[in-house]
Amino acid sequence: MRHEFTPTTYHTAIGPYEPVLRIQPGDTVATTTVDARGFDAQREQVTPRGNPQTGPFYVEGAEPGDTLVLQLDKIQPSRRYGFCGSSVAPNVVDPEYVRDLPDAPLAEWDVDTAGGVATLVGPESKLGRLTIPLEPMLGCFGVAPVRQQAISTATSAEHGGNMDYRGFVAGVTVYLPVFEPGALVFVGDGHAAQGDGEIVGSGIEISMDVEFTVNLRKGKTIGWPRGENDDYIFTVGNARPLDQAVQHATTEMLRWLQDDYGLDAVGASLLLSQCVRYDLGNIFDPAYTMVCKVAKNFIPL
Amino acid sequence: MRHEFTPTTYHTAIGPYEPVLRIQPGDTVATTTVDARGFDAQREQVTPRGNPQTGPFYVEGAEPGDTLVLQLDKIQPSRRYGFCGSSVAPNVVDPEYVRDLPDAPLAEWDVDTAGGVATLVGPESKLGRLTIPLEPMLGCFGVAPVRQQAISTATSAEHGGNMDYRGFVAGVTVYLPVFEPGALVFVGDGHAAQGDGEIVGSGIEISMDVEFTVNLRKGKTIGWPRGENDDYIFTVGNARPLDQAVQHATTEMLRWLQDDYGLDAVGASLLLSQCVRYDLGNIFDPAYTMVCKVAKNFIPL
Amino acid sequence: MRHEFTPTTYHTAIGPYEPVLRIQPGDTVATTTVDARGFDAQREQVTPRGNPQTGPFYVEGAEPGDTLVLQLDKIQPSRRYGFCGSSVAPNVVDPEYVRDLPDAPLAEWDVDTAGGVATLVGPESKLGRLTIPLEPMLGCFGVAPVRQQAISTATSAEHGGNMDYRGFVAGVTVYLPVFEPGALVFVGDGHAAQGDGEIVGSGIEISMDVEFTVNLRKGKTIGWPRGENDDYIFTVGNARPLDQAVQHATTEMLRWLQDDYGLDAVGASLLLSQCVRYDLGNIFDPAYTMVCKVAKNFIPL
Amino acid sequence: MRHEFTPTTYHTAIGPYEPVLRIQPGDTVATTTVDARGFDAQREQVTPRGNPQTGPFYVEGAEPGDTLVLQLDKIQPSRRYGFCGSSVAPNVVDPEYVRDLPDAPLAEWDVDTAGGVATLVGPESKLGRLTIPLEPMLGCFGVAPVRQQAISTATSAEHGGNMDYRGFVAGVTVYLPVFEPGALVFVGDGHAAQGDGEIVGSGIEISMDVEFTVNLRKGKTIGWPRGENDDYIFTVGNARPLDQAVQHATTEMLRWLQDDYGLDAVGASLLLSQCVRYDLGNIFDPAYTMVCKVAKNFIPL
Repeated sequence: MRHEFTPTTYHTAIGPYEPVLRIQPGDTVATTTVDARGFDAQREQVTPRGNPQTGPFYVEGAEPGDTLVLQLDKIQPSRRYGFCGSSVAPNVVDPEYVRDLPDAPLAEWDVDTAGGVATLVGPESKLGRLTIPLEPMLGCFGVAPVRQQAISTATSAEHGGNMDYRGFVAGVTVYLPVFEPGALVFVGDGHAAQGDGEIVGSGIEISMDVEFTVNLRKGKTIGWPRGENDDYIFTVGNARPLDQAVQHATTEMLRWLQDDYGLDAVGASLLLSQCVRYDLGNIFDPAYTMVCKVAKNFIPL
Repeated sequence: MRHEFTPTTYHTAIGPYEPVLRIQPGDTVATTTVDARGFDAQREQVTPRGNPQTGPFYVEGAEPGDTLVLQLDKIQPSRRYGFCGSSVAPNVVDPEYVRDLPDAPLAEWDVDTAGGVATLVGPESKLGRLTIPLEPMLGCFGVAPVRQQAISTATSAEHGGNMDYRGFVAGVTVYLPVFEPGALVFVGDGHAAQGDGEIVGSGIEISMDVEFTVNLRKGKTIGWPRGENDDYIFTVGNARPLDQAVQHATTEMLRWLQDDYGLDAVGASLLLSQCVRYDLGNIFDPAYTMVCKVAKNFIPL
Repeated sequence: MRHEFTPTTYHTAIGPYEPVLRIQPGDTVATTTVDARGFDAQREQVTPRGNPQTGPFYVEGAEPGDTLVLQLDKIQPSRRYGFCGSSVAPNVVDPEYVRDLPDAPLAEWDVDTAGGVATLVGPESKLGRLTIPLEPMLGCFGVAPVRQQAISTATSAEHGGNMDYRGFVAGVTVYLPVFEPGALVFVGDGHAAQGDGEIVGSGIEISMDVEFTVNLRKGKTIGWPRGENDDYIFTVGNARPLDQAVQHATTEMLRWLQDDYGLDAVGASLLLSQCVRYDLGNIFDPAYTMVCKVAKNFIPL
Repeated sequence: MRHEFTPTTYHTAIGPYEPVLRIQPGDTVATTTVDARGFDAQREQVTPRGNPQTGPFYVEGAEPGDTLVLQLDKIQPSRRYGFCGSSVAPNVVDPEYVRDLPDAPLAEWDVDTAGGVATLVGPESKLGRLTIPLEPMLGCFGVAPVRQQAISTATSAEHGGNMDYRGFVAGVTVYLPVFEPGALVFVGDGHAAQGDGEIVGSGIEISMDVEFTVNLRKGKTIGWPRGENDDYIFTVGNARPLDQAVQHATTEMLRWLQDDYGLDAVGASLLLSQCVRYDLGNIFDPAYTMVCKVAKNFIPL
């Protein structure tokens, strides 16, 4: 079944809040998200800033210990105006270089969805009117966290959250651990494009039209977000420092390869030895994000 | 001028050692490197283990404060036998998962240079005889460090060293800060292929035929290794934790864009905001390595 | 006014929950806490494990932006039985040493409050029946976090939480930032004693009789927990890695010295230069804790 | 035997350099050190800056795998003029706070050895003429490193080096792993006093009269510097981030307790559980330093 859902309330923490809609496994939801500052497709502020989330959506039958399967079917900018930070963040440069970072107003981008590009409009700089391809993604989404926590959409953990990973684009299937009855799915914080690491503290922030489809793997328990696209399977670790994010993601991948792909411990290590790739999600948020991935064509079936 | 040089001595630290050959800017050196354990193309151990380096090569005219330009012209396995570790390293997984890591002998690979592939020979595992494409690279190379230090080839710093970055393949031009008269160039630690992060503590370790060409940028001072290939310019940060490696690499890139590509501080930040990419060099050695890169086609000329 | 409060419910997250009691600034609360596993003074499990908290107590008049003053008047073990972990935690040793850590049952301690000592009862080891002085403290306490989050009592942040700092003993005055109306005070996780770092994942865990007195500094906003005892003022940073915890605590101290003690930026730096001391709170929980402190006798009035 | 040695050369790296004096186990050396910038007791610059070291002293009979026992007999300022940095270092505060750090000239101290105090002379600030007790210590000392490295006196590792730990005062016995024949002992970088962490990048830097006595533990191999004073035994870990320094120090302490004090793995863990204390050496140098210590009165004999 396909649900069209127009949000009227938003959350800046991900937690065990009252569902806005109940859906069945197999259902698709078509909805909208506001930008990181709470502005909608008409550039009107409809909710306070801070990565406001649409949801939560209650998935019937989801119970703690299950895995939620979340297909990202569509992530499409719903307006032309995007913005991003104009300075690399202080935590991403050498401490003694912080004083050399620029102090400039937010940068503005013209987002041309039909043309598939975004063009920098301002502020003025020697970079000029840079044009880059769109790669629309969701910066922050997930399910209600463990232990009935409500965790700020500024950060991330096992439940997902503000991972700001460029790889969360349409066509990807995400797997999330279920901690609360109904899983409680949240989506938000769309970026028309984003550099690795989200090092200016933002992608090209924009409102989105979003569609996703949910399914369940009953009784299947995972530790961290997982995902796959046509070419790769991947696992996501969220923590500081990056070293720990790598540890979480790598451990989760070793478990996945052994639990679901029939590899033994030696085989899983040897596969990763030469074939593993890592992507940097973000190095800006309170928890950083590293992604561990393996090309499907190297995994024996 | 082209020099054919056959090494007879090796170093397991990079420091102000007696040069084995004096060369001019513009010269090319064709030489060989042993594998990480000191075995040569005939699989005979000719020197103790520990990433033994060929060199140092003294570049006439190089002085502290200059930049050495090092073109990697050829990196080609000189035998069929390669080996790698069989377990993900304890520092790359969650601490409580360490006890679950396998304990297996070194893995052996058949390296088919003509065919362009490496095939896993053993130990036995459910992975079977995995075949992967060759991507020959140098794990450890560099110039004599600052302050007349002699730094172990187990680790890396501003002078290069054991960076274990998959991107150091033939065709790449590397820029290194000169700290000693003659720069003192070392090369070694060839890998027929390597996963991101070198997470089993090795790539496919193998002896190599190596050719490189040196040039100088007199009076040009850089802070960290830089490089470029057809598509990208990149900077390399070496430190722990990864966060600090990112800081070094990003700061060096901001400097490069402003000093050599005519960008101002705002333009450099805005370019990186959506276009920066990061590669994980290694997360195994005492200093970890992160690479900051930007596609050339986004940089205004 | 003095309130005697007997808890019947507990929380394993610190968040904007329904208050159990409303109190006025100046009031004292005498209450009890269960141990980290939910066992009370009679060694009966009255609530699930996970540092269950007594509270929250609503302080009339407290508003976001104020500072809560929390005097820890009494922290006294309410039974003789204490327990602790028997192995240093895997994250506190070199990764390759993890396999050498012991695997033993929980250790048990006889806690003699009258005598002021705790004696190790088991398991058997070559350490024998070690006896140490009591230093009763609260491992986890705080106020409702920013942004209406509910944060697990396993971890800590600006609001306090599971800081596991040996310095939170009776006689200390703690200052906490108020994020929610009423502040919402929680107390729990008593330790009869604890080593620096809580490196076995616990102190000597025990139920406690606790008394505290609350006051408000209206309109006074702080960033991180602060405290003072007879000899020192101190600030608390909670984060990973420890480096970041140090950054938070040091920044907060610099602010404190300038905002409230009349020092300028140079004077604050110079005072810390030779007089600063750091204590390690915990290096076990998801967020680590470092404490920055300065002896009062060095601070000019 | 007691040697009076007046240095004429200095080193700013610790490595396998030509010995300045050969001494026997049991011998005492009375010598002098210059300050961190190379100035001697007469405030004349006799060597370039960078923690110049007196030495190396060759200890007859010392071989790799032994332990050098280094008693710090005397560390006494040899002039009245001391200096220190005037701003907390950028890496010790929150990145966004770096811009608020002061920019001031070096601070000057009058060091009154007879009176046992140091008094701040300038720059002017609201701190005034702070007077603090002297605690003379050595910031940088050690033996030649493993693998014939020469490691900058800016940093530290298994061989010692620039640990900047307040606990290295007269009366302490230090144990260092021997990596080179003769051990090759270096001493330098005296501080009349220092705060924990050396957070302004220096203690009160000053020239010193130093005396030390060497002994050997033949065939006794240790991993990291160890030490003891009247009350504590301690181990020293040098690395970044602090977390890793803690891991090194704690692992070394677990080994020490089991190898030399007769504890089993459980007993060693239980001793540390409630009795371990940590000191922050430095959080300024390229490698940070954490110290793990245990009061001798808790260790069973």
